[in-house]
Amino acid sequence: MITRAGLASMDRDDPLAPFRDEFILPEGVIYLDGNSLGALPRATPGRVAAVVEREWGAGLIRSWNDAGWIELPARVGGKIGRLLGAPEGTVIAADSTSINVFKLLAAALRLRPGRRVILSEAGNFPTDLYIADGLAALLGQGHELKLAAADQIPAALGPDVAVVMLTHVDYRAGAMHDMAAVTAAAHAAGALVLWDLAHSAGAVPVDLAAADADFAVGCGYKFLNGGPGAPAFLYVAERLQAEARYPITGWLGHADPFAFDGSYRPAPGIMGAVVGTPSILAMAALEVGVDIALRAPMADVRAKSLRQAALLMELAAQHCPGAGLQVATPAAEAARGSQVSFRHPEAYAVMQALIARGVIGDFRTPDILRFGITPLTLRYVDVWDAAAALRDVFASAAWQEPRFRVRNRVT
Amino acid sequence: MITRAGLASMDRDDPLAPFRDEFILPEGVIYLDGNSLGALPRATPGRVAAVVEREWGAGLIRSWNDAGWIELPARVGGKIGRLLGAPEGTVIAADSTSINVFKLLAAALRLRPGRRVILSEAGNFPTDLYIADGLAALLGQGHELKLAAADQIPAALGPDVAVVMLTHVDYRAGAMHDMAAVTAAAHAAGALVLWDLAHSAGAVPVDLAAADADFAVGCGYKFLNGGPGAPAFLYVAERLQAEARYPITGWLGHADPFAFDGSYRPAPGIMGAVVGTPSILAMAALEVGVDIALRAPMADVRAKSLRQAALLMELAAQHCPGAGLQVATPAAEAARGSQVSFRHPEAYAVMQALIARGVIGDFRTPDILRFGITPLTLRYVDVWDAAAALRDVFASAAWQEPRFRVRNRVT
Repeated sequence: MITRAGLASMDRDDPLAPFRDEFILPEGVIYLDGNSLGALPRATPGRVAAVVEREWGAGLIRSWNDAGWIELPARVGGKIGRLLGAPEGTVIAADSTSINVFKLLAAALRLRPGRRVILSEAGNFPTDLYIADGLAALLGQGHELKLAAADQIPAALGPDVAVVMLTHVDYRAGAMHDMAAVTAAAHAAGALVLWDLAHSAGAVPVDLAAADADFAVGCGYKFLNGGPGAPAFLYVAERLQAEARYPITGWLGHADPFAFDGSYRPAPGIMGAVVGTPSILAMAALEVGVDIALRAPMADVRAKSLRQAALLMELAAQHCPGAGLQVATPAAEAARGSQVSFRHPEAYAVMQALIARGVIGDFRTPDILRFGITPLTLRYVDVWDAAAALRDVFASAAWQEPRFRVRNRVT
Repeated sequence: MITRAGLASMDRDDPLAPFRDEFILPEGVIYLDGNSLGALPRATPGRVAAVVEREWGAGLIRSWNDAGWIELPARVGGKIGRLLGAPEGTVIAADSTSINVFKLLAAALRLRPGRRVILSEAGNFPTDLYIADGLAALLGQGHELKLAAADQIPAALGPDVAVVMLTHVDYRAGAMHDMAAVTAAAHAAGALVLWDLAHSAGAVPVDLAAADADFAVGCGYKFLNGGPGAPAFLYVAERLQAEARYPITGWLGHADPFAFDGSYRPAPGIMGAVVGTPSILAMAALEVGVDIALRAPMADVRAKSLRQAALLMELAAQHCPGAGLQVATPAAEAARGSQVSFRHPEAYAVMQALIARGVIGDFRTPDILRFGITPLTLRYVDVWDAAAALRDVFASAAWQEPRFRVRNRVT
């Protein structure tokens, strides 16, 4: 029998409990949307203010050297890499996830010149599919994007597949691929793999080196708590770096950017994937979030995430019988990311009614109620209270109020 | 006869003088590098703190709607457009300048499918040339980058030229193209024009509509004072928007981003050139700088810039005879941007010695001493004091000190 008091006791025993104090969370809110925009670390306002006032304002142009701005893509990327089992020198922080997908997909296709298929998953995050389609159209060389169901990816592999592009954790249902198995199957078929870790980095155990992954991208504003629109990252396996050719050859990816050479000579290693000048404010904020994630043992994060997800599913089943909620997240722990999703025909209105009660998750079209599980900020009692609010929304039929049914919000 | 007292009197009469108080400038520094990184607006720390603490920290994901984050690329872009004679709906703030060059160059080549030449200027800012080379290599359709001297561009036009890609104001010498004349010549030859306004936006009069420009890009961290690595911008003429096809098709450029459609349908107008999620911290800081520029009459800015540039050249000639300084900036006012450049064989060491005296300009390889003229922060007496410091560096042969000759700084 689950009780709120029992959950409060679990919070007291939680080895991750102290992390909650490292974030500033608004009063009266239970935040279950850290997989869309992570919460604000308590250290971020001060760090950003120092960058703005001391490094930019007082240091001015000198800060490229004196404050180490020039090193940020590699330094912050290297730290993100440590969260992902990526060796030093294989990850940079740069650009947006979409742009990084473009860069690495183009690099992958060039490494497999005889092959014309980009294999992905039906229902993959749209930007990945759009970018692939857009790149194929740009190249005009007959590349095609082929989609298969998640469990049909290995069967869809063949001698025509250049690259398998998958999001490790699905943004809607929260289903997680077996990275090592899919990568091995792709390699056996002679294909490369590009993993999108948007919903994985800082959320679930990832070991890019152990999985022998080729390429990966991900974003900094979800579980890494880097702030709205934080820089994204990209990973290129060391064994591919010498031959990889990136399509967007900007000056900051030059071997000697300040030589202002007339012709492009890519920087060795991962730095060749850098393009232009990154936002230093955004990089500084991202680094604060990543530094926190580095101190949180992933085994603890994963264990708490799975426990909280199971708890939310169980409480929703207990409290909302007959409400029409259907669990969309896979039952098997190994096949789950760090979120719980339910299907409901009135998902949009239900989520708006929940948000009005201070429980913030999000809606994903057409019928998904999505709740991100962020163990660094989320308490067990928060899960209890969120489920209670969900019960209340159904018990009072609050979601039927017209104000909750007007689709006037972008997210 | 120029005197410091006379210049102080000019400062008192300067209609732009009050703008200096809108910036925070370090004590003991004369800043002549605002064309590399603009100074910090006094309002920026507060605005950034509000975005971090109130919009992100308290508003969390709701701020995409409630704080208008989703509108920032168009809103900030629209404001930048007003500085450039660009009609509403033709400019967005997004990505880096390099990435925007890639996007618009690819779009331009697609609009001229039979033509294979990208025509640019020898000595153009390297990233533009690198991006063009990289794009040509990626496409593998026989495109080639052809370079001509600045004054030979019209003569180099021909039926094979798809697009002319030029930086309006040269980053080294500060020479400025006649935008309307070059654009007209290119159009007469059936080519499109892509203008890089990195050293123009906020610095010199630009009227994209009057010049009938096709495409333009530029950056936010120089004369727009948007902060280190601020978002860049791009412009697409209204008449080209319906047919322009951008190569990087990200979700935020979709007609209905939150529908998460399986296939890409570009947003109408300029929004189709947006790719992924922008850094909101960076956008907010940029908007503060742009708002200041919008209040400064460009006629005043230009008049003061030309006066200060002439003054610096004259004082340098008077104070440093026989020092070997050679003016690199064109003599004709209409052919000049907002900077003064000198050639000197020991330019690197001379600039380091100047910086040690609190006069910050920059060195550009191989032999350029570059001084940015930023009329919103620069006083006439500052120009006097900078010239005095330059005289002192030469008089004392300070640049010969070994510490100034070690090339250990990236910028």
